[in-house]
Amino acid sequence: MVYKDAMKIFCHLCAVIILLTLAPYPAGAQDRAAEKVYHAESFTLKNGMEVVVIPNHRAPVVTHMIWYKVGAADEPRGLSGMAHYLEHLLFKGTPTLAPGEYSKRIRALGGNDNAFTSNDYTAFFESIAVEHLETVMKMQADRMMNTNPPPADFTSEQKVVLEERRQRTENDPKGFFTEQLKALLFINHPYGIPVIGWEHEVGALAWPEIKSFYQQHYGPNNAILVISGDMTAARLRPLAEKYYGELTPIALPARNWTSVPPMIAQPQLTLHHAYIKQPLFLRIYRAPSLPQSRNEGHALSLLTEILNGGSATRLYKSIVVEQKLATSISFDYDGLKISDGAIWISASPAENISLDTLEKAIDNELRKLIREGVTEQELAEAKIRMQDSAAFARDSLSGPAMTVGQALAVGLTLDDAEYWPRDIEAVTSTQVQAAATTYLNPDQIDKRPYISGYLMPEKKPEASPDSTIMKPEQP
Amino acid sequence: MVYKDAMKIFCHLCAVIILLTLAPYPAGAQDRAAEKVYHAESFTLKNGMEVVVIPNHRAPVVTHMIWYKVGAADEPRGLSGMAHYLEHLLFKGTPTLAPGEYSKRIRALGGNDNAFTSNDYTAFFESIAVEHLETVMKMQADRMMNTNPPPADFTSEQKVVLEERRQRTENDPKGFFTEQLKALLFINHPYGIPVIGWEHEVGALAWPEIKSFYQQHYGPNNAILVISGDMTAARLRPLAEKYYGELTPIALPARNWTSVPPMIAQPQLTLHHAYIKQPLFLRIYRAPSLPQSRNEGHALSLLTEILNGGSATRLYKSIVVEQKLATSISFDYDGLKISDGAIWISASPAENISLDTLEKAIDNELRKLIREGVTEQELAEAKIRMQDSAAFARDSLSGPAMTVGQALAVGLTLDDAEYWPRDIEAVTSTQVQAAATTYLNPDQIDKRPYISGYLMPEKKPEASPDSTIMKPEQP
Repeated sequence: MVYKDAMKIFCHLCAVIILLTLAPYPAGAQDRAAEKVYHAESFTLKNGMEVVVIPNHRAPVVTHMIWYKVGAADEPRGLSGMAHYLEHLLFKGTPTLAPGEYSKRIRALGGNDNAFTSNDYTAFFESIAVEHLETVMKMQADRMMNTNPPPADFTSEQKVVLEERRQRTENDPKGFFTEQLKALLFINHPYGIPVIGWEHEVGALAWPEIKSFYQQHYGPNNAILVISGDMTAARLRPLAEKYYGELTPIALPARNWTSVPPMIAQPQLTLHHAYIKQPLFLRIYRAPSLPQSRNEGHALSLLTEILNGGSATRLYKSIVVEQKLATSISFDYDGLKISDGAIWISASPAENISLDTLEKAIDNELRKLIREGVTEQELAEAKIRMQDSAAFARDSLSGPAMTVGQALAVGLTLDDAEYWPRDIEAVTSTQVQAAATTYLNPDQIDKRPYISGYLMPEKKPEASPDSTIMKPEQP
Repeated sequence: MVYKDAMKIFCHLCAVIILLTLAPYPAGAQDRAAEKVYHAESFTLKNGMEVVVIPNHRAPVVTHMIWYKVGAADEPRGLSGMAHYLEHLLFKGTPTLAPGEYSKRIRALGGNDNAFTSNDYTAFFESIAVEHLETVMKMQADRMMNTNPPPADFTSEQKVVLEERRQRTENDPKGFFTEQLKALLFINHPYGIPVIGWEHEVGALAWPEIKSFYQQHYGPNNAILVISGDMTAARLRPLAEKYYGELTPIALPARNWTSVPPMIAQPQLTLHHAYIKQPLFLRIYRAPSLPQSRNEGHALSLLTEILNGGSATRLYKSIVVEQKLATSISFDYDGLKISDGAIWISASPAENISLDTLEKAIDNELRKLIREGVTEQELAEAKIRMQDSAAFARDSLSGPAMTVGQALAVGLTLDDAEYWPRDIEAVTSTQVQAAATTYLNPDQIDKRPYISGYLMPEKKPEASPDSTIMKPEQP
């Protein structure tokens, strides 16, 4: 479960990849932008479980995914990490399946499986020959309702989760730093709490409280089944009814999350750490997610591609190639969230360039963008690049299930996923400029404060304490 | 209710005053430091209500206080401001007392009353002629159990509370800034949430949820009755039994608060605001409260007096008089908390002195303190000043009730209050130096990060956007 968790927990690192997979349609085919991408079929079981099928008959295989509409943001206060820990525990047995047996059987049938947890959702997936799909569905339905890890497995898995946290956070200053940056940006908001949980809270979690969370949130009416591959709705329906349709729906609590109060001051965060050899500048803005504002979200996706889509694009060309202030720079938009999205800028300074100089240069690029907007050529090229990069996505087995499932899990519709190319095609340069002006203006921090982070090597010790005593300035 | 609320909500501003009132014993009387201060009497009613009487027979008056062991830190997530709003609602009527009638009757009897809310507790007090004490007790017992504001009063009081917030926070950049500083310092901790509540949450509070909070927390077994003045335990007991002793105890929820995870990076917060004419530097450290560590808390109280106790003490003498870097400077310790305490440093720079220069000079004072410690003379003088300033406190009617009540409400014992002079007397210069080294070291921010705040006048607009474009540095 390690790799996929990492992707979601630090999902800003892969936001671009995720967004690109939203648009698997052939390059340059602007006239085809109005067509559906997936030609997915969907239906709902009588207990409320949603089902989506994305047919792809090139090989007799399927990806089977269950997306639960519950994530770290739904955790009770003080019990952080519960959703992720529970995801691990779904591999730890039911009355009819021994701990670890789930994945073992999938592998024995030639398949593979994994799971991941985010703020908003928890997902489980299996890729397997279509002839074994029923086996998967039977086991998956069982663990949806009957997970019950033996105490020894509960305890040993807690060590696994804590070790996972240690590897990513305590032992990784960038991970630790990112966690603190998000905590400061998302004040009073569940996205400020790390998905993996605060260490002292994860270490104190007990099965009875996790079980109660499980029983409140895991049930057919809180799950979306997404299957891509050699399947059709007509063939799937009797199987879905047989294995999932008989499960009793649960009483679902409302997802009432707290929100960030108006913030007018600008926070900064500095960390000097012995593990850091190369300084790093990080900046995070809160911005609308796609479900909060589709138009602005699409504009921000295009802006990301324009600023960041390769070595010929704006930020890299100006900051790295021309001004030689950085060795790398990236701009990401994390818009596939139920609540607030975020924009991330990160850059490593070139030798002898201070983070302050680098930050000022980035701000000047943003000012230029706000003042002059983007060119029609930049916009058109970005659309083509997004199409080109995305064209491969439909070929993968699991890609479409991942993309459609994530869209539905954060509150977008199947049509949002199907017609994404049309929506991206419709974005104008004026909209891109407006989104930049609203969300990235370095001279309006009192209206939309962002957080800046400075990750640096360990400070050299002062020569002598006395040498640091200040001379008063002349008034 | 305005003044006292202000005191608690911004209680760092008055931490020194509160602490000083802990030691009302005559100046220079070192041999009397081992004596009790209050000679208070205490007993517990059969329903669990604690009662403390501090006799003072100089005038036929009493201060009657009820301290509830519930405050903003106990609020459910997303319902911030509920404890404070509830405090207001206790003046808004019961089935037998019309809204506003409570205070009106107290005033008609020549008394005065008020109330205040903090993170940890909520308190109500009345000062009145002893002959009217029974009237107060009868009304207070009624509103402990039967508060039920009419809908119109509930709604109008919400406007009052929101206006109170606006005056102190939205319209006061220092208040707003302080709120954000605390939010960043107390990540994942209820002290990061303002006592008055986030505006959008206060505005959404409804009576049913406040009533449920009231019923869970307001009852005789969660209250401390403190009476100072012309009263004895023997005379009070029958009255206490009559008015409070018959009230049914409630089932109290555990006070399980969340705590701050380890933080290794140093946050800073900057606000440029049009209302600010004079820049201000603020620094906050988390530090143990007195209940968490009595020895360290007492050492920090003395350190506060040594650094801050007047124009002849360290910080003022060095930073304001000698170095001429600031026009004012203060150092406060807020140690009367159930959970973490805090240390506050604030300073206004002299003309043409930058906040950065001022901050560095303050850090150098701290380094000097850690390196050299405090002198025996400084320590002895600080003890005498604390005694001198405190000598008046016992003379006031309400002071002792306030001090003893607060001590008990945060989890100290009556003996802690009675023998505070002895405990302060026992603090050594080594302990003061150790506390400074542990909690104030500017060169160990990775072990104990603090937050620095820079409150400044509005930025002058840039001459022209183009003029800000950076020239690249030569590599």
